[in-house]
Amino acid sequence: MLNNKLSGVLLHHMDMAVAPEPEVLCIFGTGDLGRSLGLRLLQSGYRLVYGSRRPHTCGPLPQGAQVMSHAEAAQSASLIFICVHRDHYEFMEKMQPHLHGKVLVDLSNNLKKNMYPEANAVYLQRLVPKASVVKGLNTLSAWALQNGLLAGKQVYLCGDNAEAKQAVAQMTTKLGLTVLDKGSLSAAGELEDFPLKLFTEWRVPLYIAFSLTAFFFFYLLIRDIIYAYAEKGTDISYRIIVSLANKVFPIVSLIMLSLCYLPGAIAGLIQLYRGTKYRRFPNWLDSWMLCRKQLGLVALGFGFLHAIYTIIIPIRYAFRHKLISSVVDEMKDNKTTPFYFDQTEAWGTDTFIALGILGFFLFVLLGLTSLPSVGGTFSWREFSFIQSKLGHLTLFICTAHGYIYGWNKFLPPYKWYTPPAYMLCLIVPSVTLVLKLLLLLPCVDRTLTRIRQGWERNQPREEMSEMKATSL
Amino acid sequence: MLNNKLSGVLLHHMDMAVAPEPEVLCIFGTGDLGRSLGLRLLQSGYRLVYGSRRPHTCGPLPQGAQVMSHAEAAQSASLIFICVHRDHYEFMEKMQPHLHGKVLVDLSNNLKKNMYPEANAVYLQRLVPKASVVKGLNTLSAWALQNGLLAGKQVYLCGDNAEAKQAVAQMTTKLGLTVLDKGSLSAAGELEDFPLKLFTEWRVPLYIAFSLTAFFFFYLLIRDIIYAYAEKGTDISYRIIVSLANKVFPIVSLIMLSLCYLPGAIAGLIQLYRGTKYRRFPNWLDSWMLCRKQLGLVALGFGFLHAIYTIIIPIRYAFRHKLISSVVDEMKDNKTTPFYFDQTEAWGTDTFIALGILGFFLFVLLGLTSLPSVGGTFSWREFSFIQSKLGHLTLFICTAHGYIYGWNKFLPPYKWYTPPAYMLCLIVPSVTLVLKLLLLLPCVDRTLTRIRQGWERNQPREEMSEMKATSL
Amino acid sequence: MLNNKLSGVLLHHMDMAVAPEPEVLCIFGTGDLGRSLGLRLLQSGYRLVYGSRRPHTCGPLPQGAQVMSHAEAAQSASLIFICVHRDHYEFMEKMQPHLHGKVLVDLSNNLKKNMYPEANAVYLQRLVPKASVVKGLNTLSAWALQNGLLAGKQVYLCGDNAEAKQAVAQMTTKLGLTVLDKGSLSAAGELEDFPLKLFTEWRVPLYIAFSLTAFFFFYLLIRDIIYAYAEKGTDISYRIIVSLANKVFPIVSLIMLSLCYLPGAIAGLIQLYRGTKYRRFPNWLDSWMLCRKQLGLVALGFGFLHAIYTIIIPIRYAFRHKLISSVVDEMKDNKTTPFYFDQTEAWGTDTFIALGILGFFLFVLLGLTSLPSVGGTFSWREFSFIQSKLGHLTLFICTAHGYIYGWNKFLPPYKWYTPPAYMLCLIVPSVTLVLKLLLLLPCVDRTLTRIRQGWERNQPREEMSEMKATSL
Repeated sequence: MLNNKLSGVLLHHMDMAVAPEPEVLCIFGTGDLGRSLGLRLLQSGYRLVYGSRRPHTCGPLPQGAQVMSHAEAAQSASLIFICVHRDHYEFMEKMQPHLHGKVLVDLSNNLKKNMYPEANAVYLQRLVPKASVVKGLNTLSAWALQNGLLAGKQVYLCGDNAEAKQAVAQMTTKLGLTVLDKGSLSAAGELEDFPLKLFTEWRVPLYIAFSLTAFFFFYLLIRDIIYAYAEKGTDISYRIIVSLANKVFPIVSLIMLSLCYLPGAIAGLIQLYRGTKYRRFPNWLDSWMLCRKQLGLVALGFGFLHAIYTIIIPIRYAFRHKLISSVVDEMKDNKTTPFYFDQTEAWGTDTFIALGILGFFLFVLLGLTSLPSVGGTFSWREFSFIQSKLGHLTLFICTAHGYIYGWNKFLPPYKWYTPPAYMLCLIVPSVTLVLKLLLLLPCVDRTLTRIRQGWERNQPREEMSEMKATSL
Repeated sequence: MLNNKLSGVLLHHMDMAVAPEPEVLCIFGTGDLGRSLGLRLLQSGYRLVYGSRRPHTCGPLPQGAQVMSHAEAAQSASLIFICVHRDHYEFMEKMQPHLHGKVLVDLSNNLKKNMYPEANAVYLQRLVPKASVVKGLNTLSAWALQNGLLAGKQVYLCGDNAEAKQAVAQMTTKLGLTVLDKGSLSAAGELEDFPLKLFTEWRVPLYIAFSLTAFFFFYLLIRDIIYAYAEKGTDISYRIIVSLANKVFPIVSLIMLSLCYLPGAIAGLIQLYRGTKYRRFPNWLDSWMLCRKQLGLVALGFGFLHAIYTIIIPIRYAFRHKLISSVVDEMKDNKTTPFYFDQTEAWGTDTFIALGILGFFLFVLLGLTSLPSVGGTFSWREFSFIQSKLGHLTLFICTAHGYIYGWNKFLPPYKWYTPPAYMLCLIVPSVTLVLKLLLLLPCVDRTLTRIRQGWERNQPREEMSEMKATSL
Repeated sequence: MLNNKLSGVLLHHMDMAVAPEPEVLCIFGTGDLGRSLGLRLLQSGYRLVYGSRRPHTCGPLPQGAQVMSHAEAAQSASLIFICVHRDHYEFMEKMQPHLHGKVLVDLSNNLKKNMYPEANAVYLQRLVPKASVVKGLNTLSAWALQNGLLAGKQVYLCGDNAEAKQAVAQMTTKLGLTVLDKGSLSAAGELEDFPLKLFTEWRVPLYIAFSLTAFFFFYLLIRDIIYAYAEKGTDISYRIIVSLANKVFPIVSLIMLSLCYLPGAIAGLIQLYRGTKYRRFPNWLDSWMLCRKQLGLVALGFGFLHAIYTIIIPIRYAFRHKLISSVVDEMKDNKTTPFYFDQTEAWGTDTFIALGILGFFLFVLLGLTSLPSVGGTFSWREFSFIQSKLGHLTLFICTAHGYIYGWNKFLPPYKWYTPPAYMLCLIVPSVTLVLKLLLLLPCVDRTLTRIRQGWERNQPREEMSEMKATSL
């Protein structure tokens, strides 16, 4: 006979009398955040009380919620959400008796970092020492709450009272959020900084991109525009906008792409040299490896600009002018040379173009797989195949694209004794590819694989080897 | 000494005797949805019974499930999923005694809105008044269930019995779904309409796009094609397909992009005028602000079309023909004018092109950040930086692109006394940018920031100011 | 009066004395995975003990975790995560008494499929028969754990002890993961293969793409390059790289796009013929329908390449050469024919181009909606609108694009009696569209809709019809 019970809920009596009363929660503050949070809590099956200083004139609130004075509201619930600006926390000091033993969830954020000497939640705890302050949920915006964008998101909590944290965590889980405990209330400042962080992991890649762009811009400005003016007296300054930019973009893109794959090769060499994987990499290498994704995406942005700038060339006035005048010149001189079809030239430019397109195509593929929702569908092996094999192939094709660009222009003499910019930009990718090739040599590869599985060259293996890191 | 217990589960006796029996659930209906749901329930650790009128010939069912008659199946479980068409609900009326006190989860959907006078779940409750009907989970498709696309999704429930809803909510949470309670069974109709909604929030933006497209199409048709035919007798009707379209697309794109940012500026002005943020915006402004994302994405679509249409120009027959015939004409006349290289023209067109490319690039970036999985990784400050700063920069660059397009064509006389279309399309973006600039003036900006933090100009601040809305 | 309790947690005594002790978990192994998992468990509120053979020299571990010998660690917890390579499992055999009655969660993965005769978890269970081995969580990488990419993910469990599985499932749910039970420990091998699968569902589409590419490449090579060499003696081999590739790409793209929609039409015909939807489709059709998404995305990739290859044409040497020499030739012959503007040609090429752009635009839209995070926001009706209506429209436009390409070249004589490649490539799309058109005929459509709602032609309807499958 089959088991005939519903987990924990017996439904013998369908009269509503015995239905469990849903828990009551309280929200201080009837602003945007208070209202959105309240609506969401009601939808999750809680009952809700708002605390307001003007209970009768506080505007439209979610259907089903009650509004009362702060003191009354506080009495009716154990858990109180503080959706009030820090500047107005003082009133809670005065109503301390009503907050005794309550859990206060501080959701507040500041407009800037370091606006106040202590974190909002710490300040609140100092005002109301008999309550248990839990800092958290402050990464949720009113907008995300209204639009149901919570499901599956992670939120952070911290607080000194474990019980209080557990109560908040339970409520949070019911909203479909995942809770990460960040420890004691001293972490509140860190939590309050989360919504204020501004592309912290993008800063170094963007700084590198900016520096490279600036360097190559001036390098090319001097070598192309100023050289032409100084030596030949021709003014080709109009080229700055499109032609020169379209030389800078691919250079920066290629260098940054190779910077994605260089640290992996260096890490491999270090592991080979040390003969173990159980020693930390130097800090600079660790940080470098952590921003590879951002390096790659910035490189893709530059590659995208290069692609459009290239495609748009035939529309430019200068292109059409050159085309027309070359015909006219040829007609006047009655030469026949240009009409000879140069097979080598045709092969060369077509290969150059095809490599560029394929490289760009693979680059876009790599970018797509770095989208969180796409990358999340891959198995570990698929992910490493794409990021390692496909990534190196992309780098190889793009580097080859660069080499073919300068195929017959590599030898001196150079203008003003400076090498062309594309030669400079091929250095890092070439080094990266050579290192990778070295690591792929069968004997080297075998040793490295053993090291990454836990084998150690120098010392007796007292400790069993730990599971292979899948992060590399 | 460390705590040595497993939460709630003591594993002293590993013989299976004491293992808790997993709960039994029942599904009526062995169609696609029934089978997919059943498989998923089995994988979540439930036992499963199917109720079928032909228990012996109902085709392949998930391994581990039993099949029996409806009455038998109903007896073995408290929770019954109704995966049957509404048209066949009558049989449940006849087996009422077996359904007494059971929770019936109505997952049904209709093919069209308003097919029946009352919602399916309401009808079911009327048929079996002694059971507790819960409407819900109807937004899950068999396809999503089979492909494991549930995790982190939100589903809706409604029903008159709180206990029954809680039992269903518990089961649903175990499947990895987040539950939103929509209240009593009277909301069932609303829930049944969810899977039938067809781009409701896209309708207004698409309607605007369509109207603008139609208006500018006919405006340009008259002003370009018909004008040329009427006044000069030349037939350039072939231009309708590419040239004319490529004038309409950028115009619509730019206007719609500025419509994304205009309501924000208007809202700022209203708040400044009122001196408070505690009064609701007019309804039209609220709706307008809610569809900004869709407006922007439609604008991006038109921008994308404009980009490809522009890039493709040199391949067109008309372009090549013009190029060739211009050379030939020049050669015949033996003029030398075209071979003079016009620096201003070169600078102008190149700047025009570069602004277009950069604007498009930023536009694509904005579009990418609006992808749910990308936007979800941003902090509040990052999100507002992108949508406000980067957005206005994009609008500025695209507007400048438009101004340079018409740089020497702004003055009359106009054909048939009508201004060129690009002049019309620059009105809204220019107004938007001027308003935004006004709001950025230091004195105005300071006042507005204070208002948005809760400060009120006119009345004594009785109520403490609520937390800043992060939705703006 | 409102209910004044916090669900399950009474906060009368705020002194920490009565706070519930959080559960202790144990991890064997201090490698990357062990450390990342440990950090995550600590953040979810667990206490943590590491078991290590070198407790004093095992490197940096997450703050708050203790390290001890394996035996000591095992004693302090009921749940032990095995983050150790399978090669080193033997030590657990020796410490069996300490593992008696414990739950061992085997997270191990292998580097290749079929490396060992039995699954790692099965081997572990054989070594420690008195413990309850649960296989699972092995799809989580150290990298995902560190970067908080867990929320909303699905993980798999299997094991022979239901209690043990439930304990692991409870812990897993607390990490924000969704658990799928895969049954007994005999499924461990299947679970261990998950992280090793390499684009299994992409293989057939990629194989089809490769075969089509190879076939059409050689077909065009013979018909274009070799024909020109054999019959006319001209060497146009340089065309292989860009021109020929740009003929192969659109052909493969169009055929694969139509292969997305052909199985749907065939399925409809089969249902019509059988007069019921309650019989399974043949296996080949089922598999075909399951890889439609991949077919479409590969087709989009080829379409993307076709778009760039086309756009880049005017930059090619051959294009410029042809343009210049055509002018020069004309000038020399003093003909005037080329300067006559051919309206039909202008209409034709512009329509051809416009259809190509629109088709590509819709194709990109289809691709975007197949992103998991975008597709997840659609209602069922929206999804079916996009994939069916918009999809067939895209196919129609792309097919029309193909027909216009060959508008005046359809009739023989053909080179070497072989039809041009574009004619071959139009067969499948045309058949697909004709079949779809047939199914849209009012009478056919009505019957089919009834069948899909459960109506059966041939037999008396004993069984009520099940809910409409939303998977089609």
